[in-house]
Amino acid sequence: MFKPVAVRNIPRADQAVVDDLAQLGVATVHEAQGRVGLMAPYMRPVYSDQRIAGSAVTILAQPGDNWMVHVAIELCKPGDILVIGVTADSTDGFFGDLLAHSAKARGVRGLIIDAGVRDTRDLKEMGFPVWSKAIHSKGTVKETLGSVNVPIVCAGVCVNPGDVIVADDDGVCVVQRQHAATVRDKGKKREEAEVAKRVRLQAGELGLDIYNMRPRLEEAGFVYLDSLDDLNK
Amino acid sequence: MFKPVAVRNIPRADQAVVDDLAQLGVATVHEAQGRVGLMAPYMRPVYSDQRIAGSAVTILAQPGDNWMVHVAIELCKPGDILVIGVTADSTDGFFGDLLAHSAKARGVRGLIIDAGVRDTRDLKEMGFPVWSKAIHSKGTVKETLGSVNVPIVCAGVCVNPGDVIVADDDGVCVVQRQHAATVRDKGKKREEAEVAKRVRLQAGELGLDIYNMRPRLEEAGFVYLDSLDDLNK
Amino acid sequence: MFKPVAVRNIPRADQAVVDDLAQLGVATVHEAQGRVGLMAPYMRPVYSDQRIAGSAVTILAQPGDNWMVHVAIELCKPGDILVIGVTADSTDGFFGDLLAHSAKARGVRGLIIDAGVRDTRDLKEMGFPVWSKAIHSKGTVKETLGSVNVPIVCAGVCVNPGDVIVADDDGVCVVQRQHAATVRDKGKKREEAEVAKRVRLQAGELGLDIYNMRPRLEEAGFVYLDSLDDLNK
Amino acid sequence: MFKPVAVRNIPRADQAVVDDLAQLGVATVHEAQGRVGLMAPYMRPVYSDQRIAGSAVTILAQPGDNWMVHVAIELCKPGDILVIGVTADSTDGFFGDLLAHSAKARGVRGLIIDAGVRDTRDLKEMGFPVWSKAIHSKGTVKETLGSVNVPIVCAGVCVNPGDVIVADDDGVCVVQRQHAATVRDKGKKREEAEVAKRVRLQAGELGLDIYNMRPRLEEAGFVYLDSLDDLNK
Amino acid sequence: MFKPVAVRNIPRADQAVVDDLAQLGVATVHEAQGRVGLMAPYMRPVYSDQRIAGSAVTILAQPGDNWMVHVAIELCKPGDILVIGVTADSTDGFFGDLLAHSAKARGVRGLIIDAGVRDTRDLKEMGFPVWSKAIHSKGTVKETLGSVNVPIVCAGVCVNPGDVIVADDDGVCVVQRQHAATVRDKGKKREEAEVAKRVRLQAGELGLDIYNMRPRLEEAGFVYLDSLDDLNK
Amino acid sequence: MFKPVAVRNIPRADQAVVDDLAQLGVATVHEAQGRVGLMAPYMRPVYSDQRIAGSAVTILAQPGDNWMVHVAIELCKPGDILVIGVTADSTDGFFGDLLAHSAKARGVRGLIIDAGVRDTRDLKEMGFPVWSKAIHSKGTVKETLGSVNVPIVCAGVCVNPGDVIVADDDGVCVVQRQHAATVRDKGKKREEAEVAKRVRLQAGELGLDIYNMRPRLEEAGFVYLDSLDDLNK
Repeated sequence: MFKPVAVRNIPRADQAVVDDLAQLGVATVHEAQGRVGLMAPYMRPVYSDQRIAGSAVTILAQPGDNWMVHVAIELCKPGDILVIGVTADSTDGFFGDLLAHSAKARGVRGLIIDAGVRDTRDLKEMGFPVWSKAIHSKGTVKETLGSVNVPIVCAGVCVNPGDVIVADDDGVCVVQRQHAATVRDKGKKREEAEVAKRVRLQAGELGLDIYNMRPRLEEAGFVYLDSLDDLNK
Repeated sequence: MFKPVAVRNIPRADQAVVDDLAQLGVATVHEAQGRVGLMAPYMRPVYSDQRIAGSAVTILAQPGDNWMVHVAIELCKPGDILVIGVTADSTDGFFGDLLAHSAKARGVRGLIIDAGVRDTRDLKEMGFPVWSKAIHSKGTVKETLGSVNVPIVCAGVCVNPGDVIVADDDGVCVVQRQHAATVRDKGKKREEAEVAKRVRLQAGELGLDIYNMRPRLEEAGFVYLDSLDDLNK
Repeated sequence: MFKPVAVRNIPRADQAVVDDLAQLGVATVHEAQGRVGLMAPYMRPVYSDQRIAGSAVTILAQPGDNWMVHVAIELCKPGDILVIGVTADSTDGFFGDLLAHSAKARGVRGLIIDAGVRDTRDLKEMGFPVWSKAIHSKGTVKETLGSVNVPIVCAGVCVNPGDVIVADDDGVCVVQRQHAATVRDKGKKREEAEVAKRVRLQAGELGLDIYNMRPRLEEAGFVYLDSLDDLNK
Repeated sequence: MFKPVAVRNIPRADQAVVDDLAQLGVATVHEAQGRVGLMAPYMRPVYSDQRIAGSAVTILAQPGDNWMVHVAIELCKPGDILVIGVTADSTDGFFGDLLAHSAKARGVRGLIIDAGVRDTRDLKEMGFPVWSKAIHSKGTVKETLGSVNVPIVCAGVCVNPGDVIVADDDGVCVVQRQHAATVRDKGKKREEAEVAKRVRLQAGELGLDIYNMRPRLEEAGFVYLDSLDDLNK
Repeated sequence: MFKPVAVRNIPRADQAVVDDLAQLGVATVHEAQGRVGLMAPYMRPVYSDQRIAGSAVTILAQPGDNWMVHVAIELCKPGDILVIGVTADSTDGFFGDLLAHSAKARGVRGLIIDAGVRDTRDLKEMGFPVWSKAIHSKGTVKETLGSVNVPIVCAGVCVNPGDVIVADDDGVCVVQRQHAATVRDKGKKREEAEVAKRVRLQAGELGLDIYNMRPRLEEAGFVYLDSLDDLNK
Repeated sequence: MFKPVAVRNIPRADQAVVDDLAQLGVATVHEAQGRVGLMAPYMRPVYSDQRIAGSAVTILAQPGDNWMVHVAIELCKPGDILVIGVTADSTDGFFGDLLAHSAKARGVRGLIIDAGVRDTRDLKEMGFPVWSKAIHSKGTVKETLGSVNVPIVCAGVCVNPGDVIVADDDGVCVVQRQHAATVRDKGKKREEAEVAKRVRLQAGELGLDIYNMRPRLEEAGFVYLDSLDDLNK
C-alpha cells in the first residue's frame, strides 16, 4: 500500500565507518558483504574519478515528477546521499543545477537516481557527483505525491533510509546500516590480503599457482593440448 | 550481508483473499494499492490468457545457478508461487519441464523469474504458467549458494516471502501480505465503480463529461481551434 | 513552441482509399510510397491477426499523463485511429479497457501508441486492436496539458492529423493524406505484379533468373566456388 | 579478408540424424553437446509451436541488402535451412512472402535470420517457419555483394555451411556437422534419463533427494532457519 | 511519398539569435519552448564539453548509405549543422574524418546523426563536435538515393531544414526557425529568474519555501512521520 | 561439442605487421579487409585514447565464471591480447586489478571481453587498456570449465587463437592471422590515398566532385529544387 509520507528521523551509520567504506570502493565492499547490494550496471557516473559514501535519504518518486526531491532535501544532514527510485521506468531529467546547489548547501555528498539528470556540465563544475540511468534535459512536474525515507528499490537493489551508499567508477553498492561496521572490517581484511597477492602477481607469479588451481582443473577433466590440431584427433 | 539460508516457515495471506486478488487482475490490484508493487514491463507471460495469484516463496539465486530452486520447492505449499530474483543480470534458462513437474506436484501455481526459462512448449502443454524476462535454452549449474524465503528484488520490486503475487497478461504485481485484505476490498470497490462508468462510456458518453474535465482544461489554459491553420495565427 | 490546443476539424482521406490501403497491408503500402513512413520495429500488436487502416487523430501526450486521450476521443469520427506520441520515453499504461470502450463507441478503429497499454485481455476480447511499445499496468495521471490534432512524432515517424494509418502484424505505416490515393494505386499495381512472380517462384523458378541477376553478379565480381576448400587457394 | 563468393557444394549431415535432432529439441540438443552453440535469446519464432532441423546454407549479408538470399536459394536442397548473418546490426525486413515461396519450392525447411522479416501473416499461413531478431516491413536493396556458404556468425554463434540447425519455441541451436551423430546419441540418452526423473518428480519426490543435494548443501554452509526472525539473531 | 531531391535554398534564423541559443544551452532552451523538441537520450556527444547551435541542413539517409551527406555538404553555409535521420535503424559509421574535414572547410559547426560515426579520435583532435547514437567503424555505401533539406525525424523529433539545433552535454534540442527569437527571449528571462533562485538555494534556503510548496503538500494529503516505525501504526 | 581444453601453442602473426595494424587503426583496417571482422558497437573502451594491436589468446568462458582467465594468462606471450567470449549473456565483472597486474606482468597488451570488468580506475591508472560490454563490480566464481585458445565468438565476430586484434576509440576489429600482412598492405595504400583526398577536402573541394558523383546522381533520378515549396508542385 502506498502512503504519501516523509519520515523525519532516520538512523545513520557511524560517519567514520561510512568514510572507510568510501576508501574501500565499490568492488571491495561488494565482495566483503557476500556479493549482494550492487545496483545494475546501467547506473553510470555523470563524470568519472569520483568515489563517495554516505547515508541514504531515500525518495520514492513518480515517473516524470520531482516534487519529492524538494521534500527530501530539507531532511538531509551533512554526509547524506540522495537515492531516488521511481515507480515506473523514466529517463526524464529529475535533477539539475538548482537542486544540486540546494543539496550541496545542505551538505549532501551526491545523488543516485534510477532515471535521468540534466545540467551535467554544471554538476561537474560545481563538484556534485551523480550516478544515473540517463542524461536527459526533459524536465519534470510537481503534481503527484511520492514518499521520502521509506524503503525503495533503486536499480534493482532495495535501499532502506540510513543504509550506506558507496559509489565510484565501478558503480553503486548498498550496505545495510546495521552491517556497515562488519562489512568495513571484512573489506579491510580483504584489501590487506590483496596487497600481498598483487605483489606476487606483479612479479609474474601465476594465479594458477597462488590459488593452487592445477589439481582442481585436472580433477574436473581439463586437458592441455599442444596445438589446436589435436582438438579433433 | 549475504547469508546462505532457507527459511522453513513463512506467513501466508488468507487463501480466499489471494483468490479474490487473482479475480481482480493486475491492473486493478495495482491501482487499488496506490500504484506501487508493479514489476518492470519486460516481465512477460510465456504463454497468454493466464491469471493467477499465490503466496510468494522467494529465491535469491546467483546468475546462471539454479541450485536454490530445488531447495525452495521442498518448502512450497499448495497455492504458492515461486519468485526468483538474481544477484546479477542473467538470461540463462533456470527452469524447465522437470522443475515444473516437481513444482506442480507440490501444488505450486506458477513461476515469476527475473531471468530465463526453457522447455516452453512443455510448460504450456502441462499448464504451468510462467512470467519471465527471457526464453533461453542455456542451462544452469548448481555450484553457488543463494537463499530461500528471504526478501528479494525481482524485476524492480521488493518481494518478501509470503507476499501475494498477482500475474496476468498485463504483467506481475506484488501485494504486501499484511495489506492483502485491504487491497482486495479497495480493488472490489474500484471494480464496482468501473462497471457503471463502462456502461456510460459504451453508450457513447464522454470521459470529458463523466469526469467533469472541461472546467479544469479551460482553467489550465487549454484552447480549442477550428483548424490547424489557426495554430500559428 | 508548445501550445496546449485541440484542433476540432481535420481533413480526412477518402474512406474507400483508406479501406483499400488496409487491404494492401503495411509491407506493400510502405514499398508503394517509396519506403518512408514506417514506424520503428518495437511497435507490436497487442494481439495478432489484425489489419486495419484509418484516419489519424493525433495526441501529443506528456509522459505518464493520459489527459489528452479524453479530449481526443470527443473529436474522433467513425473510421479514425488514435495515434499517441509522448514528449519523453514512457512505458506507462496510458490506455485500458474503459478508454477502449469509449473509443469504440465513437467508431474508432484502433490505437497506435508510442508507450504502454493495459487490460490487454479485455482489449482482445472486445476486439479493439492496439499497436504499442509496451504492455504495463502502471496507470497515468491527468495533470499536464498536451495537444490534440497537431503534428506529432510516433515511433520515429511524423504523423499529421488526418494522415492514413495502416497497421497489421508487420507493424505500422503512415501515409500522408494528400498522397493516399496515389499510394493506393501504386500499391495495387505492385500487388498485381507480385501475383505473377509468386506463381513463378512457387513453381521453382529462381529469383536469380526472374530478376536477371546473373550478369550483374558477375559484373560485380561475384565468384562461384565448387567447395569451401577453394576459398583460400 | 572478405571475398564475394558462393560455394556450390557443401557437406551435409545424415538426414536421419538431422530429423532425430529435431525430435530432441533445442534444450536437449544444447545440453547434449556440452552447452555450446546456442543463439542469443533475442532470436524468436515468428509464429510458435514449430520444431525443425536442417542443414545450414549460410549467407553473409550486408545490412539492408538481401541480394545474397537469391543466390543462396539456388544452392539449397530439400531439408536445408537458410541461416543469415549480417555484417552490421540491422532490423530491416530481408525476407518476405515471395522469398518464402521460392525457398519452400526448393524444399527449404525454414529461415534463421539475425535481422528482420516481413509478411509474417503470409509466412504463418503458408507454413514457413522463421526465427528472427525483428519483424519490420522495411525492404532491402540488392546492391552490395556478400557471400553464400562461408562460415558466418549468426546471433552470437559461428555457423559453418552444412552444420545442423535445430530450432523450436526455446530458440535456435547449431550442431557442428561432424558431431551431429554423437550429439544425437547423447541427446537420446539424456532424454531417456529424464523420463525416469520426470516420473519421480511428478510423483512428488524432490530434486534435493533425487540428486542427493543435501550433504553438499550442508558442506557448503547452507543453513535452515525456522523463521525469518532468526536471520538477524 | 518519397522523392529523391535536394533543396538548394533554405531559410535560416538570425545568426545572433542562434548564437544566443547556444549560450542558453539545451536544458534552458527546452524549457523555454514548453518542453518540446528534445531528441531521445541515446543521442550522446562523441566528446564532451561542447556547446553549439546552428541552422539545420537536413539529410534523409537510407540505412548504411551516406551518399546524401556529400550532396548536403555542398548546400551548407557557415554556421550550419548537419542533421541526419535514417529510414530504418542503423548503427553504421556514416561519417568519419574525411567528411568532417569537408564539412569543416564549408563552415559547418557540427553533426547530429541518428546512427553511427567513426574516426572519433580525429573528430576530437580537429574539433568537430558530433552527437550520435553509436560509434562504429562499419563503413557505408553510396547506392541508394535519399533526400537533402526535406523535413526529417531525427531521434524522435521532426526537424525542418533551417530549424535551429542546440546541442551540449545534456543532449540535442530542435527550435523551430520561426520561433527562434521568441524562444531566445523566454530562455533569457528564465535564466535571469534562475540566478536569484540559485543564490538563495546556495545559501541553504529550501525549494519547499522558495516555491511555497508546503500548503499544497498538506492539501494533497502528504504526512510527516517522526520515524519509519510510525508508518504501519 | 564442447571440450574443456587449453591449447598451449598457437601461431602468431609477425610482430611488425601487428604493430603496423595498430598504427592504421580500426576504421582503416576494417575497410582494408573488405568490411568484415568488426565487433558490435556495444564494445567500448573503459578509458579512451588507446590504440593497440596484438595476437589473440582466446577464452571461452561460462557466464559469471572467470576460472579460464587464470589458465589463459600462463599461455600468453608479450604482445598478446586476451579475448573473452562467454557462452551466454553476462555483465558480471570477470576481470579486475589483480588479473590486470598478472596479465601485464606477462606482457599482455590489453583485454577484449564480451562481458563486464571492474576496478576500472585501477585499470586506467596502471595503463592496462580494456574494451568491454559493461562495467560491473559483480565478481565471478571459478566452478565450471571453459576452454582456452579455441575458436570463439566475441561480440559477433569469430576469433581464432592467434588472430590479430586491433582496438581503439572506434571499437575492435579482428584480422585473420593468415591475412594480416595483406590487410596491412591494403590499409597502408588506403591511408596514403586518403592523405591526398583529405588535403583537397580541407581546401573546400567537394566529395561530389572528387568522387565524380554528379552524373550518377542525375542518372539515378536525383533532382535539385530551388525551394521546399517546389516539392509538392
